[in-house]
Amino acid sequence: MSEGDKALRVAVLGCGSVGSQVVRLLTEQSADLAARAGARLELAGVAVRRLDAKREVEVPEHLLTTDAMDLVTRDDVDLVVEVIGGIEPARGLILAALENGASVVSANKALLAEDGATLFEAADKSARDLYYEAAVAGAIPILRPLRESLTGDKVTRVLGIVNGTTNFILDKMHTSGAGFAEALEEAQELGYAEADPTADVEGFDAAAKAAILASLAFHTRVTAGDVHREGIAEVSAADVASAREMRSVVKLLAICELRDGAVSARVHPAMIPDTHPLASVREAYNAVFVESEAAGQLMFYGPGAGGAPTASAVLGDLVTAARNLLSGSRGAGESAYAALDVLPMGETVTRYHVGIDVQDRAGVLATVAAAFAEHGVSIQTVRQEGRGDDAQLVVVSHRATDAQLSATVEHLRNMDIVREVTSVMRVEGEND
Amino acid sequence: MSEGDKALRVAVLGCGSVGSQVVRLLTEQSADLAARAGARLELAGVAVRRLDAKREVEVPEHLLTTDAMDLVTRDDVDLVVEVIGGIEPARGLILAALENGASVVSANKALLAEDGATLFEAADKSARDLYYEAAVAGAIPILRPLRESLTGDKVTRVLGIVNGTTNFILDKMHTSGAGFAEALEEAQELGYAEADPTADVEGFDAAAKAAILASLAFHTRVTAGDVHREGIAEVSAADVASAREMRSVVKLLAICELRDGAVSARVHPAMIPDTHPLASVREAYNAVFVESEAAGQLMFYGPGAGGAPTASAVLGDLVTAARNLLSGSRGAGESAYAALDVLPMGETVTRYHVGIDVQDRAGVLATVAAAFAEHGVSIQTVRQEGRGDDAQLVVVSHRATDAQLSATVEHLRNMDIVREVTSVMRVEGEND
Repeated sequence: MSEGDKALRVAVLGCGSVGSQVVRLLTEQSADLAARAGARLELAGVAVRRLDAKREVEVPEHLLTTDAMDLVTRDDVDLVVEVIGGIEPARGLILAALENGASVVSANKALLAEDGATLFEAADKSARDLYYEAAVAGAIPILRPLRESLTGDKVTRVLGIVNGTTNFILDKMHTSGAGFAEALEEAQELGYAEADPTADVEGFDAAAKAAILASLAFHTRVTAGDVHREGIAEVSAADVASAREMRSVVKLLAICELRDGAVSARVHPAMIPDTHPLASVREAYNAVFVESEAAGQLMFYGPGAGGAPTASAVLGDLVTAARNLLSGSRGAGESAYAALDVLPMGETVTRYHVGIDVQDRAGVLATVAAAFAEHGVSIQTVRQEGRGDDAQLVVVSHRATDAQLSATVEHLRNMDIVREVTSVMRVEGEND
Repeated sequence: MSEGDKALRVAVLGCGSVGSQVVRLLTEQSADLAARAGARLELAGVAVRRLDAKREVEVPEHLLTTDAMDLVTRDDVDLVVEVIGGIEPARGLILAALENGASVVSANKALLAEDGATLFEAADKSARDLYYEAAVAGAIPILRPLRESLTGDKVTRVLGIVNGTTNFILDKMHTSGAGFAEALEEAQELGYAEADPTADVEGFDAAAKAAILASLAFHTRVTAGDVHREGIAEVSAADVASAREMRSVVKLLAICELRDGAVSARVHPAMIPDTHPLASVREAYNAVFVESEAAGQLMFYGPGAGGAPTASAVLGDLVTAARNLLSGSRGAGESAYAALDVLPMGETVTRYHVGIDVQDRAGVLATVAAAFAEHGVSIQTVRQEGRGDDAQLVVVSHRATDAQLSATVEHLRNMDIVREVTSVMRVEGEND
């Protein structure tokens, strides 16, 4: 570290939509960043896949390199920004950077959620910072508040809308009545969804973020593989309409809960009441709702993706890491002392909204209610819609384990008087 | 500091609604706090005004003292929590604690907003932390996000609902149509407003918070005296109804803006559109809406007051200060390098909503419009309500300086055809 002239040198790995904004801000805001960090932040180099690719920002040619490993192991690099994503080569590069004495800022949710432990261990060993605010909910400050602001409190639940693509699709289905396929197509046309939307639509992206949120909120270690995951491809226009009748909306939620000393971490679509603060999160925005024992209910809202917003989070981490390097200290590392078990989905406690096409016979309601009772599930409300061949029951249960609830649905599917179970969706956002 | 047995000793000044919750959490959560801080946090003493007062928490008798100065200058005190409020003796105690080598956590918005500079200087001199997250918006993490998470970005505007009492009153006026006096009375009955509501209702509390927010957001120094302040006592049921017709709500806002390299910091009631995220902040909740160049629009929402929520913020600061003490480092101190001028209110740029009782004469609209034009104010919309003797014009202006707008209103008041200017309110929350 070149402390003499108060400059720190920054290597940026990746120059796509986030990396190019990081480079732009490092240049345009350099005076402010220097005043805040206590040293100039100089661009040491930018690792790219192809030297001649078109970029959103102009990078002096001598700073570009295709040899990322060479860049992060140079003697004159103090800080490394990793915005290439994916598992490898990102993991190898971050480990090499930390071993080389650099502090690292990453936006890599997939890597952090799959193998954060290896990275945190390396950061501890080198006594360097590994910050990753940009990995969850883009520009929204949520990881630092969980790690520092709420560290004197006991967080009990985190409900997050942490994937902008799926929120855009569900919001579109709500406002226009469109089905999933049509809403996805519009999201793709507008650039909110990728050509292959699997990672977003199937909940992989949200599950990685849920793992990171649960780990920080509960001081434990949760990996992406621990997170139960269901996407939104099965959400129908009828589900959305049914939610509306209940004065609710369907959202894809990342849910992290403490229950009986264990953690439940899951991603699935759920109905939440219109009055819940998360219900008003529209379009591609993200929000994270946190419940804690002393603070009560908090919400953090903002853009969850995009080059400039994500770069804002990266630079916040970068300035903080720079301050720490200059003062010879480091921020809080991983806090996983609680080492909690992860609950299997079947033991998670939740509520179901079930739509059932039934034969219009006397006693049908009693028979259906008996099926719920047989599995120990009590019913909160039941509503009958239509008559004759169009008879439809809508049942909302009280809280029960997911195993009890799914066994009930299985049971219903096998009953003679049930023509079809038309909709099954969990209900969240209400107090126990 | 007693680093040998990994314990840090905490003095708490004040044992009212916040102090008692701090003491309770220090006891009840001690194992978790120790794991997170890296050392046990032991209660060294609690300074109170009267030893025999009734308290919400039981404090061992030998830990109670009425001599706060003696407590903060003891050798075995590492961390001091100041939750007594007011200017003196709080200032003297904090200065003594810092000089004695303790790090300090305060919830004292009035003191920070009036004389933060003296305190920050003392903290720098002693190389200790002075944290005060609880001073603004209670449990909501907003100061640390501004100081750290957004430090790589350029914040351009902060709009805050930072006083729960006034938000409760205005929300009540909206939902019930009640007038100010009636809503205040209900707030007092429910414990949301004090018997003497001046500090809340006249905007003093919000102005102190605006000064703190502006200082952190813009890396400059703004004191409570720099903040233009108008309360909500003049807000009428008619104003609220008029806002509703515009699909807006009236909120008391703390507004901090960068404009032409200077800061505008002000507190006043304003109409904001229903679609703005701040519009849905109900009852006594607080929220801070932040606009920045790279991140875009963020919002932080939660309970702005109350013993336990405020204690959550205090303990987050306390654990962070403890970690820093243990590692021999400190967090970021005051950042006021930008040293910006504060704009006088007259130079602030805003929009006005003006209700005018006019005589029903031909040409009245043209005459009124000419008055606006004479002061260089252009009109966005004008609506005529009623007829004959009840004729009323509602004018919403485009953006202009507050001086131009208030001169226009003065002019209107002196016009023959104007019976009365019935309502003047600023309009915020829309883009320029």
